[in-house]
Amino acid sequence: MRNNNIRDVWAKGEAVVSAWLSIGNAYTAEIAGWSGYDCVLVDLQHGMTDVQTMIAMLQAISATPATPIVRVPSCDPAAIMKALDAGAFGIICPMINNAREAEAFVAATRYPPLGNRSFGPARGLLYGGADYFAHADASIVRLGMIETREGLEALDEILAIDGLDGIFVGPNDLGLAMGKGTLGDPTDEAVREAILRCLSAARAHGKHAGIFCPSSAVAARRSGEGFDFVVPNSDANLLKSALIAEATGARVSDRK
Amino acid sequence: MRNNNIRDVWAKGEAVVSAWLSIGNAYTAEIAGWSGYDCVLVDLQHGMTDVQTMIAMLQAISATPATPIVRVPSCDPAAIMKALDAGAFGIICPMINNAREAEAFVAATRYPPLGNRSFGPARGLLYGGADYFAHADASIVRLGMIETREGLEALDEILAIDGLDGIFVGPNDLGLAMGKGTLGDPTDEAVREAILRCLSAARAHGKHAGIFCPSSAVAARRSGEGFDFVVPNSDANLLKSALIAEATGARVSDRK
Amino acid sequence: MRNNNIRDVWAKGEAVVSAWLSIGNAYTAEIAGWSGYDCVLVDLQHGMTDVQTMIAMLQAISATPATPIVRVPSCDPAAIMKALDAGAFGIICPMINNAREAEAFVAATRYPPLGNRSFGPARGLLYGGADYFAHADASIVRLGMIETREGLEALDEILAIDGLDGIFVGPNDLGLAMGKGTLGDPTDEAVREAILRCLSAARAHGKHAGIFCPSSAVAARRSGEGFDFVVPNSDANLLKSALIAEATGARVSDRK
Amino acid sequence: MRNNNIRDVWAKGEAVVSAWLSIGNAYTAEIAGWSGYDCVLVDLQHGMTDVQTMIAMLQAISATPATPIVRVPSCDPAAIMKALDAGAFGIICPMINNAREAEAFVAATRYPPLGNRSFGPARGLLYGGADYFAHADASIVRLGMIETREGLEALDEILAIDGLDGIFVGPNDLGLAMGKGTLGDPTDEAVREAILRCLSAARAHGKHAGIFCPSSAVAARRSGEGFDFVVPNSDANLLKSALIAEATGARVSDRK
Amino acid sequence: MRNNNIRDVWAKGEAVVSAWLSIGNAYTAEIAGWSGYDCVLVDLQHGMTDVQTMIAMLQAISATPATPIVRVPSCDPAAIMKALDAGAFGIICPMINNAREAEAFVAATRYPPLGNRSFGPARGLLYGGADYFAHADASIVRLGMIETREGLEALDEILAIDGLDGIFVGPNDLGLAMGKGTLGDPTDEAVREAILRCLSAARAHGKHAGIFCPSSAVAARRSGEGFDFVVPNSDANLLKSALIAEATGARVSDRK
Amino acid sequence: MRNNNIRDVWAKGEAVVSAWLSIGNAYTAEIAGWSGYDCVLVDLQHGMTDVQTMIAMLQAISATPATPIVRVPSCDPAAIMKALDAGAFGIICPMINNAREAEAFVAATRYPPLGNRSFGPARGLLYGGADYFAHADASIVRLGMIETREGLEALDEILAIDGLDGIFVGPNDLGLAMGKGTLGDPTDEAVREAILRCLSAARAHGKHAGIFCPSSAVAARRSGEGFDFVVPNSDANLLKSALIAEATGARVSDRK
Repeated sequence: MRNNNIRDVWAKGEAVVSAWLSIGNAYTAEIAGWSGYDCVLVDLQHGMTDVQTMIAMLQAISATPATPIVRVPSCDPAAIMKALDAGAFGIICPMINNAREAEAFVAATRYPPLGNRSFGPARGLLYGGADYFAHADASIVRLGMIETREGLEALDEILAIDGLDGIFVGPNDLGLAMGKGTLGDPTDEAVREAILRCLSAARAHGKHAGIFCPSSAVAARRSGEGFDFVVPNSDANLLKSALIAEATGARVSDRK
Repeated sequence: MRNNNIRDVWAKGEAVVSAWLSIGNAYTAEIAGWSGYDCVLVDLQHGMTDVQTMIAMLQAISATPATPIVRVPSCDPAAIMKALDAGAFGIICPMINNAREAEAFVAATRYPPLGNRSFGPARGLLYGGADYFAHADASIVRLGMIETREGLEALDEILAIDGLDGIFVGPNDLGLAMGKGTLGDPTDEAVREAILRCLSAARAHGKHAGIFCPSSAVAARRSGEGFDFVVPNSDANLLKSALIAEATGARVSDRK
Repeated sequence: MRNNNIRDVWAKGEAVVSAWLSIGNAYTAEIAGWSGYDCVLVDLQHGMTDVQTMIAMLQAISATPATPIVRVPSCDPAAIMKALDAGAFGIICPMINNAREAEAFVAATRYPPLGNRSFGPARGLLYGGADYFAHADASIVRLGMIETREGLEALDEILAIDGLDGIFVGPNDLGLAMGKGTLGDPTDEAVREAILRCLSAARAHGKHAGIFCPSSAVAARRSGEGFDFVVPNSDANLLKSALIAEATGARVSDRK
Repeated sequence: MRNNNIRDVWAKGEAVVSAWLSIGNAYTAEIAGWSGYDCVLVDLQHGMTDVQTMIAMLQAISATPATPIVRVPSCDPAAIMKALDAGAFGIICPMINNAREAEAFVAATRYPPLGNRSFGPARGLLYGGADYFAHADASIVRLGMIETREGLEALDEILAIDGLDGIFVGPNDLGLAMGKGTLGDPTDEAVREAILRCLSAARAHGKHAGIFCPSSAVAARRSGEGFDFVVPNSDANLLKSALIAEATGARVSDRK
Repeated sequence: MRNNNIRDVWAKGEAVVSAWLSIGNAYTAEIAGWSGYDCVLVDLQHGMTDVQTMIAMLQAISATPATPIVRVPSCDPAAIMKALDAGAFGIICPMINNAREAEAFVAATRYPPLGNRSFGPARGLLYGGADYFAHADASIVRLGMIETREGLEALDEILAIDGLDGIFVGPNDLGLAMGKGTLGDPTDEAVREAILRCLSAARAHGKHAGIFCPSSAVAARRSGEGFDFVVPNSDANLLKSALIAEATGARVSDRK
Repeated sequence: MRNNNIRDVWAKGEAVVSAWLSIGNAYTAEIAGWSGYDCVLVDLQHGMTDVQTMIAMLQAISATPATPIVRVPSCDPAAIMKALDAGAFGIICPMINNAREAEAFVAATRYPPLGNRSFGPARGLLYGGADYFAHADASIVRLGMIETREGLEALDEILAIDGLDGIFVGPNDLGLAMGKGTLGDPTDEAVREAILRCLSAARAHGKHAGIFCPSSAVAARRSGEGFDFVVPNSDANLLKSALIAEATGARVSDRK
């Protein structure tokens, strides 16, 4: 079984740095895979991407040192299993609001008797290797997103679910759910406190805590706080910022 | 006929700032179109893009304020006509080495009797409007690339071709052709001189001069020198730089 | 925020005329957008289209004067949110049978606290503009389909749901549900009466009523009856009819 | 070897009626194949289509009673062979200006020793059958387009090329080449005369004459004149007309 | 209505032999359709395929003598209806665990009043013919998968559901669910017994029994046992085995 | 620079075994890459593949131990350069008939001053590494196809071209060109002799000789004869044979 960088980094006590792909394209996915990230996430929820494109992106990431993972659109077992069959080595599942949803999420990623994942690991077998079936359940990483009031309140019961590796905080959605707007790096005290509560709850359960950040500076700060899975913005945002900066800069001339 | 930003900017005596798309994707094309560029170029030569993707990208750019243009893979009339039929309002043609090639390039972009473009303007008609046929030849912009020794030597005969709007310099290829390596902003004196010779020849003919630049700083400088069509790097390069910077930055933490 | 033609037309007290795309193709979508419709609908339910194609179609429609909208395959929040993130300015949701389903539908289209739409408006931000988040909930149009006996019986409770702009009648499915066959312009008295009941219920609630029609003649009649969102057939049906007519016509010759 | 409808219709002394696909989509191709045409043409020249889409379209047409054919973008042997390998049973080649080009076109469609088609009939073998190699050269139909002054003047030498089944007239391009504008059904006397000269030359050589028409009425008239391969407009034009007519019709109401 | 080979073969008392497509590609689908199978299945559950690719594959299969069918990813009515609208003449639905799920599955495949399939048969109409609506419900084949302990225990209530044509056994998943590993041809006595119990239960209800097999030898044996729908492995497995065998064989040389 | 397996195998004096992909699909490409081949070839000439699909296939092969190479459709410099920019580490060029064509082929693969490859190595840089430009020319493998009488007669002048690594024999086309039919393993004495003449000429020039074979048995024999680049059939042929064999085998039962 091919190693999962996420588990390797965690084993060293370090924070995983993940790229986040909103652009549905295999070339940009491959670029991301060669840019120094531990893993590269294909975002099926808000990304301009669907399943067929995801497969091509997972192939492209597989050609790089980064580990391919997927954020699924919802806690739909069929979608989760498809991402795994296509070779994802980790799943981030949005909108985990209670223990029941966390359990359903985890079950969809594990073969019986521990779960109900259906057998047919297609590309997983190519990427993972011939012993994929024996090691997949142990290797795959599962993070549930805390982004609603219900999720916040159920933190403990969610983190208690066996097989869940940890939680992932979406600050935009969390702030929104708390009626405090959509800041990538929230300034509202209540939201800040909620985010840190997620972190401390995860640690108390011996589990991992990840977070989406609006920049590498925030990601570094979050890592310093103890988050061990940080995402410094998305490819689409980074590209847009860079394109705007270059267009602006190109017009600053002493042209006569 | 919809206006062509390139001609509008030139009419004001200013330099066109163009985005350059190596990524074959319509979402990134649309992002570029909203980032402040006068035009957005789909690169069929070195980009990871083919004709079907180009069509989707031209559609996406058409939804933005930017004018869609295309660099074709070679001076192949069928490829040039396809890009125009798909709605490109400008063509950059690589490897123009002499007057004959410049003439063939221009002819492929003009309807008879001035050229030999075949009739069937498909998307051009949608994007350009019902009077596309009447105005297309006047609106479309044509730039021939100077990137070989032969091209350099034939500058005057190339620029003399009626209908050619100007030239576009590829510093990497020009430097390579001159045996001086592939610097995006050449430091070699002979290459620098050759680039400026392109500019002055274009001006002497009352035509336009464009150039690919490795950054907006260089683009601004080129604009100051008199180039009136500048490209501050490609989407793929910008994305890669941004991704690497964020991955690096995210690891700089005081994690304990 | 870019304007939504549907709301503009309604504000003038007129009936919206929408194109209906069963063909999964961005070029035909763009053709439709330039053909005089207020909005153009991508049909994910019965159309030969999936999510990736929908994104390309929404981009193509965005390059035209028409407002892009989507019929989702079912009342699945993930599918609804994806269509909105991809830039749809309206959603028609099939099979709304009761208030609970209508409420779930509306909630998926609204950010908290009014709903549970997850944050990540990708293309919505490009098409809608930088102030998308502030205005999206007010701008997006939501129509629930009445096409079952349950839906008919629950008309009032459905129309009472806050945020639902109105209903959309599928005469084929409604007739089928009532055991009266699948006529696009039903002749059965009970079905005709049910359709008009939908209209009068919508009006009684101060809401809008749309309907799919087999031709522009029927659409015009429905508009005269008071329906303020009419669809004169689908692109696939129109193309098929035109192709058959031309093939037939071409064979009528005095060939000897 | 599966039969070629075009040869069957010609054997009965009748005119072939062909659909013409500018839309790059397999579903519309399949619709066309079920609409009563003898053959369905995928237009790679001006259509919004490339090779991968063409393959899917040829597959879709193969599921219908119509014979699949292709207009290639230019007289490029590689493009011609690819269309044949993908299962096209006929090729229309644009811009045939002289005997040499006609000969090159025909050679690219025939295996040695009669031509230089390279061996590897991929889908041709599936669609044509196991005896494809034995019968392909005899079954495939080859029409060269006359659309330039040179082509008109070289009519006789072109028609004399062995293996060329006939010519195909593009009235738009022919009119344009003659300086008479782009009318689908030319009214200019010189263009009308040139078109009929194509017809009589083909007949004099015992060969076939085809023509693109702006409507079935014109196609029927052309068939009456003796053209035995007529095209009553393209899918994109038909769809656009139908969409506009329905949008207009839907607004004609007595709405109050 | 076009005939359904599956019903024809069953009417003769024979076993259907089906190809199984894990590769998401229309060319391989067409190859399979010409390889001697009664039907060809597109696997949306574990195959590297999504909806848009499925449509292209169904078109390709429609060009062959084989009947196109689909395994949907889950018992989701929207997914089932989409496959049918796209022209599938049979559906295999995974994870049928009880009568309620079997009933929901069947209902999604039938128009009211027998079910709740929504009307809009798109490609079904092209492939099936103009009388599709009248005959679809009778022609479409429905097989529910037994692959869990719950499913095994509920065999009788599942088979009692009206409209369900029978069951399909997934030996890998069944063995896994029973804690006996994932052998394509199980050797464990309990699993073997369970498989035969599925067969005898189906027969007792006058219904059909299908099974996935790891080879044609096993498929022939299963057919001999009484299974009347057998699948001799998948395209991906067959291709992989053949590729490995050829690579190995090519290296066995007396090279000096 | 990443190593090129072809050069490594040749350095050991062994024969390269290459897979040959006629199926235009990235999943089958990845399967081939894990099946024990030194390199995997994407066939753009006769394969059901175009440029966009090729890029995805090269990405998929890059995720495996095999080296990705491409057969281009013709000796078109733009097509050759595109394949290299997309990351191909070797090119097989069809229809090399003389020294001039061989020279043009080689020049298109080399940067100035040795050739005229245009600079812009996109994916090449990702797959090859940051030092791609320094090593690409030395690493890339170039084989010209001998498949015509002219090519056979010009063997020596072709093999004398500096930078050409060797030749590749297409027995089908060679037999066809010699008027001896299209046997994958020719039995005709003249064709057999011509094939061996290719081999001995290559050896005399210190160059490599490759050949397409209809099976691994023939490939092993060819390797024994001295060919050092052998292809044991294509993916499409292997899949078709396997599918037919399984369909046939599944029907051999003692069913009663």
